[in-house]
Parts: sequence; C-alpha cells; structure tokens
Amino acid sequence: MCSRPEPREPLRRVAVVGGTHGNEMSGVYLARHWLRAPGELRRPSFSAVPVLANPAATAACRRYVDCDLNRTFTSAFLTARAHPDDPYEVTRARELNQLLGPKASGQAFDFVLDLHNTTASMGTCLIAESTHNVFAMHLCRHLQLQSPELSCRVFLYQLPGEESYSVSSVAKNGLGLELGPQPQGVLRADLLIRMRALVAAALDFIQLFNQGTAFPAFEMEAYRKVSSVNFPRTEAGELAGMVHPQLQDRDFEPLRPGAPVFQTFSGKDVLYEGEATAYPVFINEAAYYEKGIAFFQTEKVTFSVPALPALAPAPAPAPAP
Amino acid sequence: MCSRPEPREPLRRVAVVGGTHGNEMSGVYLARHWLRAPGELRRPSFSAVPVLANPAATAACRRYVDCDLNRTFTSAFLTARAHPDDPYEVTRARELNQLLGPKASGQAFDFVLDLHNTTASMGTCLIAESTHNVFAMHLCRHLQLQSPELSCRVFLYQLPGEESYSVSSVAKNGLGLELGPQPQGVLRADLLIRMRALVAAALDFIQLFNQGTAFPAFEMEAYRKVSSVNFPRTEAGELAGMVHPQLQDRDFEPLRPGAPVFQTFSGKDVLYEGEATAYPVFINEAAYYEKGIAFFQTEKVTFSVPALPALAPAPAPAPAP
Repeated sequence: MCSRPEPREPLRRVAVVGGTHGNEMSGVYLARHWLRAPGELRRPSFSAVPVLANPAATAACRRYVDCDLNRTFTSAFLTARAHPDDPYEVTRARELNQLLGPKASGQAFDFVLDLHNTTASMGTCLIAESTHNVFAMHLCRHLQLQSPELSCRVFLYQLPGEESYSVSSVAKNGLGLELGPQPQGVLRADLLIRMRALVAAALDFIQLFNQGTAFPAFEMEAYRKVSSVNFPRTEAGELAGMVHPQLQDRDFEPLRPGAPVFQTFSGKDVLYEGEATAYPVFINEAAYYEKGIAFFQTEKVTFSVPALPALAPAPAPAPAP
Repeated sequence: MCSRPEPREPLRRVAVVGGTHGNEMSGVYLARHWLRAPGELRRPSFSAVPVLANPAATAACRRYVDCDLNRTFTSAFLTARAHPDDPYEVTRARELNQLLGPKASGQAFDFVLDLHNTTASMGTCLIAESTHNVFAMHLCRHLQLQSPELSCRVFLYQLPGEESYSVSSVAKNGLGLELGPQPQGVLRADLLIRMRALVAAALDFIQLFNQGTAFPAFEMEAYRKVSSVNFPRTEAGELAGMVHPQLQDRDFEPLRPGAPVFQTFSGKDVLYEGEATAYPVFINEAAYYEKGIAFFQTEKVTFSVPALPALAPAPAPAPAP
C-alpha cells in the first residue's frame, strides 16, 4: 500500500498524460492538441506539461505495441539494465521515468494526471491507488463538487501489498481519469469535452492549493478492487459465454448473490456465487479479454479523509539591499 | 451495378460468414459456436455452412492483418497470379473464392449471409449492393416484417459503375447484417442474441422460398450511398476536429443544410454545406478513420420490388419400376 505524504510546497511540476494506451482517443487527441497549443494548461503558479505517453502505439491506434505500458512502472522494469530486445513499452517506461521521475525520488514530478477511456459504462471514474493518498482524495472531492451532474465515482485499484505500476505512480502524486463508454479508436466529442473540463478543474484545484487554500476533512465513498472475474471458457481456453444482458452496462451497481453474470452460447445462465453483494466495475472492457478479466469485483467503502492544511506562506523576499 | 437474376431453383448451398473483420465479435463468436454445433443452421431443404472468414485477424482480434478482406473480392485480386508476397487477405480471398465461388460462376454458392458490427449507432442495418437484387430485397422485407421492433434499415452500398468487392459478392446472392453500436473487440450479449435471431429468420425465409412460397411485390425504402465525408484535418493530415455532438449517434436521421457536422479542437463548429438534406450513416465508425471517412452521405429512396414467384414444383420422381 502506497502512502503519499501531503505536499508541503506548491506543486510546480505537473504533467497531463494522454495516450498511455494508444487507442483511448480522448487523451490521445487532447495531448496532441495541447502539445501544439499548451496555453490551456497554464495557471498563475504553474504550467502543466502535456505528454503523449506511447507514441508508437498511438501511431498504430493500438493499446500497446509489445506490452501494456501502464503495467511497466515497477522497480523491476525501471531499474533493470537496458537491453536491445526489451519490449518497446519497457524502454518507453524508462524514458518516462527519466522525464517525470525518477519514481520515489525527490526530483519526481509533483503531480501526474493520466487520461484514459474504457469501453465499459464507467461514466466518469477517478482512479487512485488507495485511501492513503490524501491529496488525490481532496482532488476527487473537488471534482465531485465542481461537477455534481457527472456523479464522479472513485475507484481504488491497488491490492494490499501490491507494488504500484501505473504511469502516475512515477510522480509524487497522481490521479487517473477514466471516461466511458467509448469504443477503442473512436473519438466522441461528448467525452472529449467532459475530459477537457475535468482536466481544467483539476488544474484549478492545484492552483487553489498552491495559492494557500485549506481544504476541510470530509467523508468519502469509493469502490475498492477486491478481485477479478474471468469469462466462462471452453477447455481450449476460448470464450464459452458472454457478460449477461442483465449485468452489461451496470458498472458500480450492486450485484447480489444468485444474480446472473454470464450467458453461455448454449443459452445457459451462470449465476454470481459470492456470499456478499459486490460492485462490479470495468464490465466487458475490450482490453481485458486477453487478461482474462470480464469485470472487477469491488467493495464499496466509506472512510474519513483528513483536512488538507493550507501551505505556509512563502517567506517574504529579502529586502532590497 | 450488379443485377442478380431471381433464383429458379431451391437454394441448397448457403453460407453464414462471421469474422470477415476479426474484431467484430458477434459474427466471430457465432461462427465459432456454429462450427462446433452446426445444428442451428439446418433447415429441411438445406444446411447452411458456417465460415470463419479471416482466422488470422480473428486470432489477433484485429480488423485485418494486411488489408481489408471485405474489399478484396474484385476480379483484379481474385484472378491475379498468386505470389508469396501477396497480402494475407488477398490469399484468403482466393481461398474463400474457391470455397464459396468462383465469383460469377454457375458453381458459386446460392447465398452468403455476412455478419458485421459497427461502432456507429446503426441499429439493425441490412446491407445489399443495389435495388436490383430482388431476392435480397424480399429477404430484407421478410426480416422487417418478422421483427418490426428492430426498425431494420436497408443500406445500398454500391456506387454506379463500381465493381462489387465484398465477400458476399462471391455468391449468386447475398446480404450483410450490420449491428451496432458495439466496440471493436467487445461481445455484447444483446447484439449477439439479436444477430442470432436475424440469421434464423433469414434461413427460415430461404426455407419458405425453397418449399414453394411466392412473395408479392411491395414498395421498399432504403438509404443509398452517395459519397463519403472526411474529418477536418491539419495540413499534416492529423485530425483537426471530431464529429459534432449534435451529429453523433444520429445515423439515418436527416441532416439539413447549415447543421453542424464537426467541432474542431479549437472549439469551432463546421457546418454541413450541401444544398439538399442528406442521411448520414456509419457516423464515427472506428475502422473508417484510416480510410478518411467520418460518415457516408446517403439519399433516401423508395422503389418498387417486383413479386418473387414461387418455384415450379420439382418434377415428380419417376415411378418405381
């Protein structure tokens, strides 16, 4: 579990990352646009840097070239000696670690906002590692209050004891934005406009913090990953069924014991055999078929987030001699 | 323009083709299922053959490996001398032409039903070459009457003077089923169930025809392709904008002169400059970005389809000696 200390200084080094997955088009096209016209990412106390994380996958309009970039920011990959046969994304992770990190060092960027799309009906989802990231929880709260019509939900992806592996884990603090449903390779105007507004609100929050705003404690509700559930499979490993029509598009809704979760191609229903209500997310995400994931089971948790104190005022400049 | 004579004999050789595009999952998984369990495709007068058209693209969950298979069934590709450097799909088109054709020959299959998905909001769309295919028009009419709740629309894809190039053009008669929206690489139960029911109804229609049913003349409404419209582009050829929120998901609805069709990343609306109302289809289809197509413009046409006469009864078997 990664505990992130609250920042004691203004956040000056901020990055907005698109195209970590090359076929998630909202972030790809926002990053490309901001690389040409970065003015939108400027605030009085900082200028966020736009980054196109996976240029080769983006050019090919694929999630990745050799392996999933957003799983390669582990110390094993980042610290191993470089080799000409390394997967493209491992090499690229090391480059991004140089640009935005090094991970877990004092020189790392203060904040990374990472932009994603999903084919699942996740609506507007904010992805953080765990409840321990107090700054990110305050940012989530700010986005929820700024855009109540979006019902922004918070997903906590890190399992207990698991090392962080995402691009945003390279920075001192970070958050993922996950907007869906959007097919891979399709750019929907409604989602791009929504993502652009969320990024603007996130940068505004950092500006408020930098200029000395304090944020009070609050109660937060979130969905914490518990496990993943695979599709029914044939003995040869092929799909034997699909997500049940009654589960499709029901991300974040309660799944009760005995409810149908899959339907086989022979027409048989497969029921949820858990003993407690679960909250499935990323239901029927295209990129997860190859990972053997039909959906994640989460538990709904409520927890207290402590206040985020105002930064101490910067020392007055020395009087002119 | 391809004119298809009405069949004078029962249709015995029928194929149902899935996976012509390897990431359009309804047809991929129906074909795989029927290859294991073909009983569902049997009718008293014939047994339809399930075909997985592009196994390599299906295994990779991509539209194609080297080039779009559903554009390669032209005489130039089919009759050229084979070469080891031929694109995979050109080789595969020749194999399918051997299996289902040869195209335009007396030995060709009687009917090919080709199963597709689109990321566009096309609902249930039936794709034929032109109004001249009387048998296919009667099949469309049958599907419309069998499933009025689906509002099956008919799209005529062949431009005047254009050679046919699709897998179904190899057979004496054919029809495409295009169901959407469904993301590439995602299998939605609702769409698979709908496609399965449409295939069953199509085979039932062929059975009715084979057993001597006559079908009366009727008036048909369809959407005929006129031209394609590209996205706004930068000088370097990159996207400069996206499908306007007011056009997204409005396939088959009237687009009037002056209505917005695109929004640039700088926030400017691009208006439809045509002089007459058009009916856009395949709006924002993922696979068409690389073809430079944001949508097709169609015209709505109404035309008369002549009666489909009953087959003459088969000659009585010779009396036993």
